[in-house]
Amino acid sequence: MKQSMTFIPTLREVPADAEVKSHQLMLRAGFIRQNTSGVYSYLPLAQKVLKNIEQIVREEMNNAGASELLMPAMQQAELWQESGRWYSYGPELMRLKDRHNREFALGATHEEVITSLVRDEVKSYKRLPLSLYQIQTKFRDEKRPRFGVLRGREFIMKDAYSFHATQESLDEVYDKMFTAYQNIFTRCGLDFRAVIADSGAMGGKDTHEFMVLSDVGEDTIAYSDTSKYAANIEMAPVISTYEKRSEALKPLEKIETPNQKTIAEISTFLNVAKESCIKSILFKVDDRFVLTLVRGDHEVNDIKLKNLYGATVVELASAEETKETLNCVPGFVGPINVSNDVEVVADHAIAAVVNGVCGANEEHFHFQGVNIDRDAKISQYADLRFIQEGDKSPDGEGVIKFAKGIEVGHVFKLGTRYSEAMDATFLDENGRTQPMIMGCYGIGVSRTLAAIIEQYNDESGIVWPESVAPFQIHVIPVNVKNDAQKDLSDKLYAEFLQKGYDVLLDDRPERVGVKFADSDLIGLPVRVTVGKKAEDGIVEVKVRKTGESFEVSVTELYDKIKQLLGN
Amino acid sequence: MKQSMTFIPTLREVPADAEVKSHQLMLRAGFIRQNTSGVYSYLPLAQKVLKNIEQIVREEMNNAGASELLMPAMQQAELWQESGRWYSYGPELMRLKDRHNREFALGATHEEVITSLVRDEVKSYKRLPLSLYQIQTKFRDEKRPRFGVLRGREFIMKDAYSFHATQESLDEVYDKMFTAYQNIFTRCGLDFRAVIADSGAMGGKDTHEFMVLSDVGEDTIAYSDTSKYAANIEMAPVISTYEKRSEALKPLEKIETPNQKTIAEISTFLNVAKESCIKSILFKVDDRFVLTLVRGDHEVNDIKLKNLYGATVVELASAEETKETLNCVPGFVGPINVSNDVEVVADHAIAAVVNGVCGANEEHFHFQGVNIDRDAKISQYADLRFIQEGDKSPDGEGVIKFAKGIEVGHVFKLGTRYSEAMDATFLDENGRTQPMIMGCYGIGVSRTLAAIIEQYNDESGIVWPESVAPFQIHVIPVNVKNDAQKDLSDKLYAEFLQKGYDVLLDDRPERVGVKFADSDLIGLPVRVTVGKKAEDGIVEVKVRKTGESFEVSVTELYDKIKQLLGN
Repeated sequence: MKQSMTFIPTLREVPADAEVKSHQLMLRAGFIRQNTSGVYSYLPLAQKVLKNIEQIVREEMNNAGASELLMPAMQQAELWQESGRWYSYGPELMRLKDRHNREFALGATHEEVITSLVRDEVKSYKRLPLSLYQIQTKFRDEKRPRFGVLRGREFIMKDAYSFHATQESLDEVYDKMFTAYQNIFTRCGLDFRAVIADSGAMGGKDTHEFMVLSDVGEDTIAYSDTSKYAANIEMAPVISTYEKRSEALKPLEKIETPNQKTIAEISTFLNVAKESCIKSILFKVDDRFVLTLVRGDHEVNDIKLKNLYGATVVELASAEETKETLNCVPGFVGPINVSNDVEVVADHAIAAVVNGVCGANEEHFHFQGVNIDRDAKISQYADLRFIQEGDKSPDGEGVIKFAKGIEVGHVFKLGTRYSEAMDATFLDENGRTQPMIMGCYGIGVSRTLAAIIEQYNDESGIVWPESVAPFQIHVIPVNVKNDAQKDLSDKLYAEFLQKGYDVLLDDRPERVGVKFADSDLIGLPVRVTVGKKAEDGIVEVKVRKTGESFEVSVTELYDKIKQLLGN
Repeated sequence: MKQSMTFIPTLREVPADAEVKSHQLMLRAGFIRQNTSGVYSYLPLAQKVLKNIEQIVREEMNNAGASELLMPAMQQAELWQESGRWYSYGPELMRLKDRHNREFALGATHEEVITSLVRDEVKSYKRLPLSLYQIQTKFRDEKRPRFGVLRGREFIMKDAYSFHATQESLDEVYDKMFTAYQNIFTRCGLDFRAVIADSGAMGGKDTHEFMVLSDVGEDTIAYSDTSKYAANIEMAPVISTYEKRSEALKPLEKIETPNQKTIAEISTFLNVAKESCIKSILFKVDDRFVLTLVRGDHEVNDIKLKNLYGATVVELASAEETKETLNCVPGFVGPINVSNDVEVVADHAIAAVVNGVCGANEEHFHFQGVNIDRDAKISQYADLRFIQEGDKSPDGEGVIKFAKGIEVGHVFKLGTRYSEAMDATFLDENGRTQPMIMGCYGIGVSRTLAAIIEQYNDESGIVWPESVAPFQIHVIPVNVKNDAQKDLSDKLYAEFLQKGYDVLLDDRPERVGVKFADSDLIGLPVRVTVGKKAEDGIVEVKVRKTGESFEVSVTELYDKIKQLLGN
């Protein structure tokens, strides 16, 4: 493509409202422009990268046995009412009415449409399993769109759905999709982790999020420093074991601790380690009250608490509820002398606390010399806390580290959530009606574009990995008014194209400094500069990634390019 | 692709609500399913054809110097208010509000978005011309969606826009786009005409519609039986000349014609040819009244009348207005003895009428022996009538025939309609601010899919042209439980794929009759049937288009396929 004829509006200044690197660079390098909050136009360079990513996604999806289709963005409200999400999705679901006042959702996701489609056509186990995907524009009215296309309101997604007669069949396709996702993000050049995620209200068992490691990520990942293990921190079990200190047990003693509410305060006030303090927090777990105990240096993981009780809603008890249940204000509650109505669950670490400190269920008082099994009644011990950096990895290999991640993909065993609500059934081998078992698999295509830029940039601009680069080669004549330079550039451009390379020719009558700055900003893998030595058939090759540059004669150029880029 | 793993829900019956062939076949062959009125899902076979059409469109657009981008569907109301179309577009424009109660249009077309995008970045003639296109989903709330995806409410369009500093530059790009369109529709295998169209309220001069010839088309095309000339019938000038009959002039005579209002009635009543009758119709042209005269066998073309006067609105005068102006009810009006306030314009054919008949401006009376230049005062003669079949072609070659057409493309010189309204200006070579001159160029991609099927089908199903067929080859084992047949089919499938063909393998455990019927319905160019002679390495090849079939040994198969399909 000739640069004079396309649309790459680069900017010298960093736009004031762009907080993260990818957003800044996509604006500066002329990849996107904002139309309105969270809504963007993808300019020609971005569109080329999107197409490259889509092609990789298509190849891997087809390879995993999925077929591409295209479903509509306009979805009749009735479908969403069947699934119940018309009512539960909230303001993120964009809604509109047609000229006949009929209501529609703008597709935020397509479980309803695909379930209705398959339900109407597939009636027998013989037609299952079935995997279908699309690459399509999605609409979600984010409360706080930000970071450019990382969190937009209109974005491109690949969403796939699978339908099964048996759980085993779902498991098999889930594994294929998992592998496809690993291939996709690897081919995109991304440093990512497949992390164990929370299946949330869906009731599914297996679910993984594919996270691109990045400081601007909104999620925290706990990963092993030596193995492949990775999970959302909420999901990582703690397998650490704790040894009791060999110390003589002291008697239990109530002491005055005026206004010392937090662990930090009490540990300073009494000059004891946080590890010796017992953090006691009252939760409301569905309809009952549960007093949780974790060590002072640990945090309660409410998702673990929720899963422990198979509960729907877990929330902190209010001050009033705490007062009512424990006859004490928060800050001084503890497990000793509590009513039998209150269950007390303790993290495993608590069992190893010797001569500890806890609230006395009396304002401005704590107990010290606490030895939990002697002094309190524990309903059960459980893994109750958030994993921490330095903990053993749950798979037994290495220790846990934390990283921030951008979620670019999600694979999910939906089970019968939609098929039951929408009556998508089939006849099994025995002629019995069964709900289809479903999986769903999403990739944020436009978000992946931004995530790649987050990982591939330097102080001069973007540094595209070859697999998705908008063009492979940037041909730059230093002076387009010089015939030799112009002719040689045109010739190389034509020949590269003919050999199947994707080439950008900077034929603009700009100063060479401007061209080089734009070129670094855009970040194509290889630059071929045609300057004064054009008359001698010598050009300069520069590799964007390494900064390496060298002169080469035109006769040797293609071999060099082939070495650098493959063919 | 293996048929057992994809989603091709064929139907044996013709769906009751599908009126046209393409709609019926797309439903029956499992290409589409309706989600709600005018909104469809494109199932895997349709999606493959769409991708093939899109690829052709991309190649030709790139070749014409246009760059692909992607603009959003969600368009802030403010943009449409700037252009004025927020108010003028009517209920066809779908509108919605976001969570902050801000208004949006769902993109029906993208003139506003692209104009704002280019206006913000391009300031100098040096950056022009610029051609940009996208392939994207459009939304139009059609009053009467019908014919499947031929007239839907959510559809896929390629829309391109060009920006220019000079009219000459627009003319040049318009011609390139015109050529690209011809290439695109030719490569899609379509029998089409580029017809001269009405530029409507846009004020542009050149505009062409690309019409696929089809009886289900909603537009009538006038085309030459020998040349390339084609136009919307409203737009075709009449170049016919008329000779006066050599007959002695009779005197003007008023005669009683009780209740004989129409041309048909008066010609029967007086036993004169329609060609001798003068049809007189009063129009309101903006603010004035114009009495138009055409021959009894001709029809007034109000677009020609409108263009003749450069008018904005042309409509038939009401009965009241006619009474007021000519002192007569419609049905008996004529050009003789009318007030000087009324302009009388006559079609050229009227000058050649000898001893004709016309209304007497008196109820139940006509004149006969009318010789117009003797008896009436004609303000001007003009080309005022619709062209008819049998008329000379306006380019002088051949005679006119009529055909119905489906509009699949439109190229249009917009001029400064949007750039002036939205202040999209540039500095010209002399440093003067000028509005950009624009062109726009649309293709209905999903409509093209249906139009191809309208032209490519027979009583058994679709007959795909190779260029856009969802697959090139259909491999069908007669009995998948026979090892020899299954193994050979699998082998051929793998080898075809390896040779770069797109192949569908019908590996379903269905009866062969069902498979053949489905195969004919789906309509891939070449079928390879693997039957009883599989053990001898012999298969049957059938060409869908011609019905030709022959046996061939596997060793010669690839050469045969190469002959049939190319490689």
